[in-house]
Amino acid sequence: MTRKKKKIFSGAPPEKVAEDLKPLLQFKEKGMPLSELRALLEQHLFPHLMDYEQPQFQSMFNTVPEPGAKFGAVLNVQFNQGVTNWQVSPGGAMLEELCCKALCLLFGLALDSDATFMYCGTYANQQALYMALHRYAEKQGFDLNQKGLTGFKHPDKLYVLCSQDAHFSLRHAVRTLGLGEKSLVPVPVDSNRRMDEKKFRQKINELGRKHIFCAVVTAGTTPFGSVDPIAGIAEACINEDIWVHVDGAYGLAYSLLSEWEHLFQGKELADSLSWDPHKQFGVPIPNSLLMAKNEKDFERMTLYSDYFNPRQDPHPNPGLKSAPSTRPFSALPLVTSLLHQGLRRAKHRLRSPLEAVRRAALDIKKEDELELNVKPDTGILCFRVKPKDFPKEKLNSLQEFIYEHVMSQGEHTLSKTKLGEKTVLRLVAVSPKVQSRHLLETAFLCRTVAQTY
Amino acid sequence: MTRKKKKIFSGAPPEKVAEDLKPLLQFKEKGMPLSELRALLEQHLFPHLMDYEQPQFQSMFNTVPEPGAKFGAVLNVQFNQGVTNWQVSPGGAMLEELCCKALCLLFGLALDSDATFMYCGTYANQQALYMALHRYAEKQGFDLNQKGLTGFKHPDKLYVLCSQDAHFSLRHAVRTLGLGEKSLVPVPVDSNRRMDEKKFRQKINELGRKHIFCAVVTAGTTPFGSVDPIAGIAEACINEDIWVHVDGAYGLAYSLLSEWEHLFQGKELADSLSWDPHKQFGVPIPNSLLMAKNEKDFERMTLYSDYFNPRQDPHPNPGLKSAPSTRPFSALPLVTSLLHQGLRRAKHRLRSPLEAVRRAALDIKKEDELELNVKPDTGILCFRVKPKDFPKEKLNSLQEFIYEHVMSQGEHTLSKTKLGEKTVLRLVAVSPKVQSRHLLETAFLCRTVAQTY
Repeated sequence: MTRKKKKIFSGAPPEKVAEDLKPLLQFKEKGMPLSELRALLEQHLFPHLMDYEQPQFQSMFNTVPEPGAKFGAVLNVQFNQGVTNWQVSPGGAMLEELCCKALCLLFGLALDSDATFMYCGTYANQQALYMALHRYAEKQGFDLNQKGLTGFKHPDKLYVLCSQDAHFSLRHAVRTLGLGEKSLVPVPVDSNRRMDEKKFRQKINELGRKHIFCAVVTAGTTPFGSVDPIAGIAEACINEDIWVHVDGAYGLAYSLLSEWEHLFQGKELADSLSWDPHKQFGVPIPNSLLMAKNEKDFERMTLYSDYFNPRQDPHPNPGLKSAPSTRPFSALPLVTSLLHQGLRRAKHRLRSPLEAVRRAALDIKKEDELELNVKPDTGILCFRVKPKDFPKEKLNSLQEFIYEHVMSQGEHTLSKTKLGEKTVLRLVAVSPKVQSRHLLETAFLCRTVAQTY
Repeated sequence: MTRKKKKIFSGAPPEKVAEDLKPLLQFKEKGMPLSELRALLEQHLFPHLMDYEQPQFQSMFNTVPEPGAKFGAVLNVQFNQGVTNWQVSPGGAMLEELCCKALCLLFGLALDSDATFMYCGTYANQQALYMALHRYAEKQGFDLNQKGLTGFKHPDKLYVLCSQDAHFSLRHAVRTLGLGEKSLVPVPVDSNRRMDEKKFRQKINELGRKHIFCAVVTAGTTPFGSVDPIAGIAEACINEDIWVHVDGAYGLAYSLLSEWEHLFQGKELADSLSWDPHKQFGVPIPNSLLMAKNEKDFERMTLYSDYFNPRQDPHPNPGLKSAPSTRPFSALPLVTSLLHQGLRRAKHRLRSPLEAVRRAALDIKKEDELELNVKPDTGILCFRVKPKDFPKEKLNSLQEFIYEHVMSQGEHTLSKTKLGEKTVLRLVAVSPKVQSRHLLETAFLCRTVAQTY
């Protein structure tokens, strides 16, 4: 705690950052050499960027690229391949398709599963819900692509169930799908913040099973890292013919680890799964995937056009499986990362921060004036500072104070969230550099800061 | 025509490419050093990538990065900033916001306009339509975000008008918005393949003005590069209170050139505009923008969450303006490109291929056995090979033959599209390296290949 720390970012307030960046937005007729440009950025921009390399960065899912992934990403800048189809990149289009199949197998899905690279988990979730709704429409005898929601007998009764802790991208998804947020039904969680299976079944009965077209199981909630009971939910849904989507944007990677695998039991039963390699896998942003148990389900998205996606084209065409037309070469950095590291090191990279969180949680439990709020399933740690004899009604504002104070110093980052009525502090470990002592260091710092409240 | 050409890509058929790429998908426990990995890629992948640097690449909108943009993109790989909000990158979030404002001004929009970086034109168009629909719902007295399409009195009568040549991403958009393709109404084009203004007004009357919530004006159609009459359409829509979206994903950049500016007259009247800097601007994929005349319209997308996007946050937060949660640092390569080149060189970069296409079109018109099909507005050239006394009913299959033959050689790339019943060949010039002689070379090669039919 006494050593001099490097700042993670400047800690400057918005006005100062805006002032510093101004010269970068003055576009002039005459250009400048790259050396001059670099000097300008070093002075005006770099201090305000976040240094994810430092183990004191504990606020979010960001991390510096793994060297093998970085290698592939730099090649991508050089070649700048669009990989929508054969016309723009034969090797790119083919590697995307082969990589999708290989990843499905790596995650233990069946041989006739498939995947498509997406830009981010938000769009992956949106597409999964659309595919679910499309299948639901098909069973009612019409093509959603043509008729839209008005094809349903009861368009006002179309429900998606998810955990109350599910990601807000689902709210975006039901909005843009024309369903409105009224169609998204939150299910309460248990004491580990996992979706409560019993209450899930109750909800099905309440709403009427025939009106539920999709259930979203979160494998690693963003606020707490909890993994919903996939097998139990999937079983309930298969009986009712409800599409099961696993939102594993954050957590699915951990299903590759033998010690954590049990949490993800039943994932192979899901109709679709999303996963963000740009989180803990160390692949540069953006890199995201949507997998489907049944490859044919991607045809629900397919669109043909004369000049770009003609029918009966014998060439591979990743662009037929999702909406985006221009597509970055997402497979390359993921493939170079896995080849460079090998599976053993890739798994070690994933395991290390989870072990750090597990250990830090045990230690925090033993500490005075620190309260562990959720037993962590994966890499997120939620706690409160609770000084002795501190007035209960001021605890939330104390956590707010700690958060603001620590962030403004620029030496540690953390985040905060709500747990019912409680404001809690939240630490995230995604980089293998984050060890339990770094997490504890932040927690102890928070306790110290509380004394200045 | 006689000099030995470097291949643009291997020209190998899909089976051969798949076979070559196989070793890249065999993920093993043990990794390999980067030097070994590079050798593997050089042998197995690189020959099958497309070399956009060569002026014989004329099939699509792809190009190699402009050096200043490349510089920024490599920094992005290094820092890997997510720029959703202040917690993950103070400097990144702020630069995104300031850059959006600066770009609106560069494109001549009003002071209270704003923009948001999107992943691609497809999602930009989708969001524009959603914002349009949201405003339309607001006028009918309800919040689309909450109630969805069932809030409308006539959800079966919600129409979007667009050119018959508009991009297929609009079909994706109406599908995912729950409207179905039935809601997308194509308007016929004139002889320059621009949306016909008179027929547009007729369509409004036919469908009933009150049922049309959006008109999409394409500024640079993807098959022909034609620019719809923005001012005329916008005028008709403002009177009827219809949202005007300009899909300028391909063409909008050319409005920065004084010689082409007149084609884009009225763009400042549009409610929203999309633009892809990852096309001719030479910024690496993905880089896309959605602009709005009225910055307040982005609030239609806003979602708050306790842990990530809290209400009343004093910090800049690009994530409030569109659905994606994880966001790449899109502003950086665009800013470094404009600073390095300066506006003069950036404009020269844009102008050069347009001049090449204009010149080549004049020359093709004079050639025997070549038929120019559309007078080009921007950088796309459509023509057919029409040998003397060739049977009319076989002309389409001749163009197909030429396309397949040229592509399989790997020395030139081109594309094909439909013009009514006619199959036509299509050349695209986005790189400043493509000069009129390169376009003519491809056209003459096509004529030569026709002799072997």
